Amino acid sequence: MDSWLVNGVAGDTIKLDDRGFSYGDGLFETIAVRNGACRFLDNHLQRLEEGCSRLRIPFREHGMLRTEVTQLAAAVANGAAKLIVTRGRGPRGYRLPDVCMPTRIVGVQETQPVACPAAGVALRYCETPITRNPALAGLKTLNRLEQVLARAEWSDTDIAEGLMLNDRQEVVCGTMTNVFFVRDGMLYTPQLSESGVNGIMRQQVLAVAGEKGIDVREVAVSKSELSQADEIFLTNALIGLWPVSQLDCQSFGRGPTSAAICAGLAARGVTECAAL
Amino acid sequence: MDSWLVNGVAGDTIKLDDRGFSYGDGLFETIAVRNGACRFLDNHLQRLEEGCSRLRIPFREHGMLRTEVTQLAAAVANGAAKLIVTRGRGPRGYRLPDVCMPTRIVGVQETQPVACPAAGVALRYCETPITRNPALAGLKTLNRLEQVLARAEWSDTDIAEGLMLNDRQEVVCGTMTNVFFVRDGMLYTPQLSESGVNGIMRQQVLAVAGEKGIDVREVAVSKSELSQADEIFLTNALIGLWPVSQLDCQSFGRGPTSAAICAGLAARGVTECAAL
Repeated sequence: MDSWLVNGVAGDTIKLDDRGFSYGDGLFETIAVRNGACRFLDNHLQRLEEGCSRLRIPFREHGMLRTEVTQLAAAVANGAAKLIVTRGRGPRGYRLPDVCMPTRIVGVQETQPVACPAAGVALRYCETPITRNPALAGLKTLNRLEQVLARAEWSDTDIAEGLMLNDRQEVVCGTMTNVFFVRDGMLYTPQLSESGVNGIMRQQVLAVAGEKGIDVREVAVSKSELSQADEIFLTNALIGLWPVSQLDCQSFGRGPTSAAICAGLAARGVTECAAL
Repeated sequence: MDSWLVNGVAGDTIKLDDRGFSYGDGLFETIAVRNGACRFLDNHLQRLEEGCSRLRIPFREHGMLRTEVTQLAAAVANGAAKLIVTRGRGPRGYRLPDVCMPTRIVGVQETQPVACPAAGVALRYCETPITRNPALAGLKTLNRLEQVLARAEWSDTDIAEGLMLNDRQEVVCGTMTNVFFVRDGMLYTPQLSESGVNGIMRQQVLAVAGEKGIDVREVAVSKSELSQADEIFLTNALIGLWPVSQLDCQSFGRGPTSAAICAGLAARGVTECAAL
């Protein structure tokens, strides 16, 4: 990040006894900045608020976060903003501190939007499993070692993303993306009741599908079901939507459903998708 | 912690783009300091080295860590030392940095050793599950949200610890301890192939049992097996060994096997156990 605010003060460090560092006891959001504005900021703040509630982090400064990230983003043409909320500082030990003063962090970074690869991207399956834990499912917590280990499995730059499976051999998500597939005109995406992140762009895809009368089912997804898909695509807040052209050794084409979703996302401000 | 060294320099902060903070991408050790010396330091350093290897953190400064923590601990009569190694700073994204410069942190804190409760401690079962992931099993990583949520389940100070179960309803560990039980003179402890921390005091218990000819089995443990135990005890590096007097509504007594293990630990320098 090019600039950071920690509890409203410019700085690029955090205390070593912050539980965000000690235990990963916190949450984060990664937000696309386009023309100086945070895209889908309300949705990001809402997910963060829900996460704080589920982790019992008594954070009440969502309004401050909104103000701060909006101000920082205004100085950036295009890039990424990051929000982090931790449970704050505390003595050694997992027990929640008697007095909990959450830490609020905002950062922004100027970067060019990733060009949407119209020809589609290639994927692989990761061997690192994603664990099932309903208490953390859907949240974007600071505990991300599984994603780090999965992403470390390949260095081939032709592979854009890796899909992660749980111990039941269900496909849950990419290391940094949600996954969708189309079969016979129906849109499917893995359910997130036990693992995975409730992605902001995933929410937008579901909303667009609703608008356009495309039926969506959130289901358990096997590798074999995915291999029979007519279309596959990935989403996240920064990339928008990436069509998938290859998964392991199998090729996939683009199709009408992902084209319709793309058009809907573009209409909602995901301009990267307009090129598809 | 009363004093910290970050990469050998006194300080109490870490950079916001350190992956230890961003993703919990690192490991830690908590070490008992007794009379100015780090107890079982070799074992802690060995576990840390194994963890770095398994997480592919190219850390080679174990000798520096040893020197630094030994120097800091010498200024403290009794207390706790903490070692932290992270993958270091990196740009946004899970992908491992092209150049990886791990961060090395040492802290010490003066505290009185916890008096070993001769009458035993009371336990509960936690509802927060511990997930199964062989890639992280045994390691003390900075991803500790499951333990935080489990420890947050109770505030009754009469309850010393909570036991965590995996999704197969196997008892794996306490939030901050390893667990052992005795049945018909045989010592049992949960296997750690899928979850849990390979505790340093657990290693010592296994070594003492070997010396004393006590048979030990590392097994899958159910609640019903634990309820039939003759003796139960907990261990960690700071507490040594705690006999368990109560688990949920059931009472447990002390017995000859835990007494023998205690004596063996005391002989190895775990002086807290000498009082038992």
